Parts: sequence; C-alpha cells; structure tokens
Amino acid sequence: MKELEVCLSPNLIELYELKGKNIVVADIFRATTSMISALANGVLSITPVKNLEECRNMSHLGYIIAGERDGNKANGFELGNSPLSYIDGKYKGKKIAMTTTNGTLAIEKSKAKAENVLVGAFINLNATEAFLKKDPKDTIIVCAGWKGKFNLEDSLYAGALVSHLSDFFRIDCDSAIAFKNLFEANSTDLKKILSLASHTKRLQNQNIEADIEFCLNIDMYNIIGVLRGNDIVSEDVV
Amino acid sequence: MKELEVCLSPNLIELYELKGKNIVVADIFRATTSMISALANGVLSITPVKNLEECRNMSHLGYIIAGERDGNKANGFELGNSPLSYIDGKYKGKKIAMTTTNGTLAIEKSKAKAENVLVGAFINLNATEAFLKKDPKDTIIVCAGWKGKFNLEDSLYAGALVSHLSDFFRIDCDSAIAFKNLFEANSTDLKKILSLASHTKRLQNQNIEADIEFCLNIDMYNIIGVLRGNDIVSEDVV
Repeated sequence: MKELEVCLSPNLIELYELKGKNIVVADIFRATTSMISALANGVLSITPVKNLEECRNMSHLGYIIAGERDGNKANGFELGNSPLSYIDGKYKGKKIAMTTTNGTLAIEKSKAKAENVLVGAFINLNATEAFLKKDPKDTIIVCAGWKGKFNLEDSLYAGALVSHLSDFFRIDCDSAIAFKNLFEANSTDLKKILSLASHTKRLQNQNIEADIEFCLNIDMYNIIGVLRGNDIVSEDVV
Repeated sequence: MKELEVCLSPNLIELYELKGKNIVVADIFRATTSMISALANGVLSITPVKNLEECRNMSHLGYIIAGERDGNKANGFELGNSPLSYIDGKYKGKKIAMTTTNGTLAIEKSKAKAENVLVGAFINLNATEAFLKKDPKDTIIVCAGWKGKFNLEDSLYAGALVSHLSDFFRIDCDSAIAFKNLFEANSTDLKKILSLASHTKRLQNQNIEADIEFCLNIDMYNIIGVLRGNDIVSEDVV
C-alpha cells in the first residue's frame, strides 16, 4: 500500500526520502492559498523565486511580481501575498513571479528530488485529495511553517488531508497520526483553534482578517496546482 | 508573564533562544523515563554521554555504563535503556554513564546555553510542573524525537505540561497550543493514541510492553532530574 507522511517544517525535510514521491507543500497563511486562488482565477503560471532581487528582475521579462516578507508586501512589488488580489480576474492570462517568507523556500527544497510537487490549500482540498487517491505514488505533505518553526495552520491542513486519505494510504508516521487526530478533534470549528495561532495574530495586527477568512474556505476550487519545470500551473483532476 | 514554548525536535533547537531559560528534555520511550526511575531508586547521578565509545571508557572510572542504540542494549554494556532495571534498588548509590539514540543528544544540545536543563517524564510529571510553576524563568520543552523526526509520545508529554501550566505562563507558541489541545483531547486514554505511535510498534516488536506500561504511569515519583555540571541529579521540589 502506498505511504503517507507529514514533514512539519522545511528544516526537517532532509530526514525524508523524497525521491519518486508526490510532495504537497502547504503554506496556508498565505502563499499556497494565493497560488491556488491565482490559478483558479485565470493566472497562467506562478514561478516561485527564492529572493526579492531575483523576483524584481523578472518584471523585465514580462512577469507580474509578487513579493512578501514577514507578512508585508515588499517594496516595489505590484502584489504581496493576498489571495484576494486575484479573485476579480485582474491577472487573467498573466504570468506571476512570486517570493514569500516560507512557502517558496519549501517548494525549492522539495523540487530537487520529488516526482511531483503540488501546492495545496484548504480552498482546493478535495481536488488535491482526488489527485493523491488516484496516483499510485507515496506522498509527503511538507508544512512550510514560519521561518523553520512549526505552525498550526499548515499542520492542521496536513491533518485534514491525512484524515480524508487514511483509507487509501498506509500511515506509519507520528506527525500524520498526531495531526489527523488534532484535525478530527477540531474539524467542526477550525477557526476556533486557529484563532490561537501565532500567525493569525500576526495577520490580525495587519488588518487582514478577510484574508484569514478566505484561506479557511474549504473546496472553493476544483483544480490542483502542480510544478511543471519551474512554473506552478493548474491542472484538472480527471 | 514568563513564557512557555515547545520545540518538537532537537533538529529545530537552533531556532529557539535558550539563554537564561529552563529547558525540559523529554525522551519518554525511554531515556528520560529511565533517568528519573534511576534517580528515584537511589542512583547518585547520571552522566549523559554522546557516543558509545566514550561511554564504554567511563566504566574504568567506576561508572555503571548504560548504552542503547535503535532501542537495543549496545554490545558490552551492563544496562540498556529500560526504566525497570532500576526499580529493585540494585544500583542504589551508583553513578551511571548513559548514551542513547535521541535523549542524550537533546540534552547535549540544550546544555550549552540554558540556565537549567531538566529531564522530564510522565512518572515525575507533577514534580517537574511544581518546579516550573515556582521558578520565574521562561521554559522551553524540547522533545527528543526519533533521529531528528517528530514523535508522538514526547510531544504528548509536552502537551501535558502545557495543559497543566497554562495558568502560570504566557503561551504564544503554535506547537505548545497544538499539543495542549491534542493532550486534552486524549488525556482519558493516552495509551490508545500512543498505541498508534511508531516507537510503540518498535518497542512491541522487542517484547518490552512492560516498559511502555511503566513509561506511561503518571506521578510515581516526587523528584525532579536536573543537570548540575555534567551530571543529572535528583532534587526535591520544596
């Protein structure tokens, strides 16, 4: 039976065997939610970029540039890290280059060895699940965390995936067991436990409650986001 | 108000500010449980040692040597890592040198900067709590994990401490919040969730169910284990 594991921080990723596996990167507040929102609203592709400088340079190549550090839009960037920036279709048909505090680093670390790198969010939970159910490969969910530390929202998303996929995978990984249990104990009111999370407080201080609300919507979009070459693109699950 | 944090793996310890703080190292299955069992049963001190070779040499200095790798007693060692080895008082008045897969490494990483390094276990939960309640310093609970990876039993112990100490500390740490919640959701039947843990299965394969049972007893002993110089010694909580 194929196997499902959860890696709670990009700083622990070296302990996992990624080769030949599907990796799902989760940065719920807000990078991977923004990516799925962008793709579901007509953006052609998102190119994750490690640093601000490299990202800035991509504006000369026709990319719309999105840059965030510590939760704030970086200087000189058209977009920050809000998933709401895309929902009016303003960036339909555009290519985005994006750099964020945690999410793009987690993608970078995953892509060297993995077979497929997906980006996942609550807003396309079911689509990612459908892909993983059908695909025969082992899966590792990588939580982007906050500057290497564990965070609550990414691990609860991992717990949701594990909970919904447990009939289809062998689960012999303590972090998968822990967060399946924690998700199930809190699934009727995810917002309550997440209101305690440090990143929620960080975002509330920046008056972006609407972003938090959006990031916790489940199954708004029926696409997956998957890295092809250097670009994350949308694919339908058939 | 003093602060309480949880570090889920020794591989993440560099992300935390240890200076001037109390560190509680937890390696429930079985290193820190064995240390508390030894001290509560009359052992004078336990000297944590990084590698097997160094530990072996200490037998010439009058130490009883305890060595474990991957759950098994290492070749040529009098003791492995079972907390039951000490309960008949056979090692009363002796000094132990001990090296284990995860626990001694976590202690090693903590001791350079911390103010106090305690070793904690379910078997002396209340005594450790009493010490931390009284002491004015910030506390970080460091889970020893398994070869750098997260594990369930150490993080649930951390959750128990957080749950019982939450009126006395400011808790602004996602891993503390997560495992407080997970402990509280499972506190009436810890054995049930821990029966799923990878290390439980590892130990069951070695026919040491009696060890697991012992490690999950709460509040058998009313001492703390604390590092003084290079030795872990027993102290009463007054």
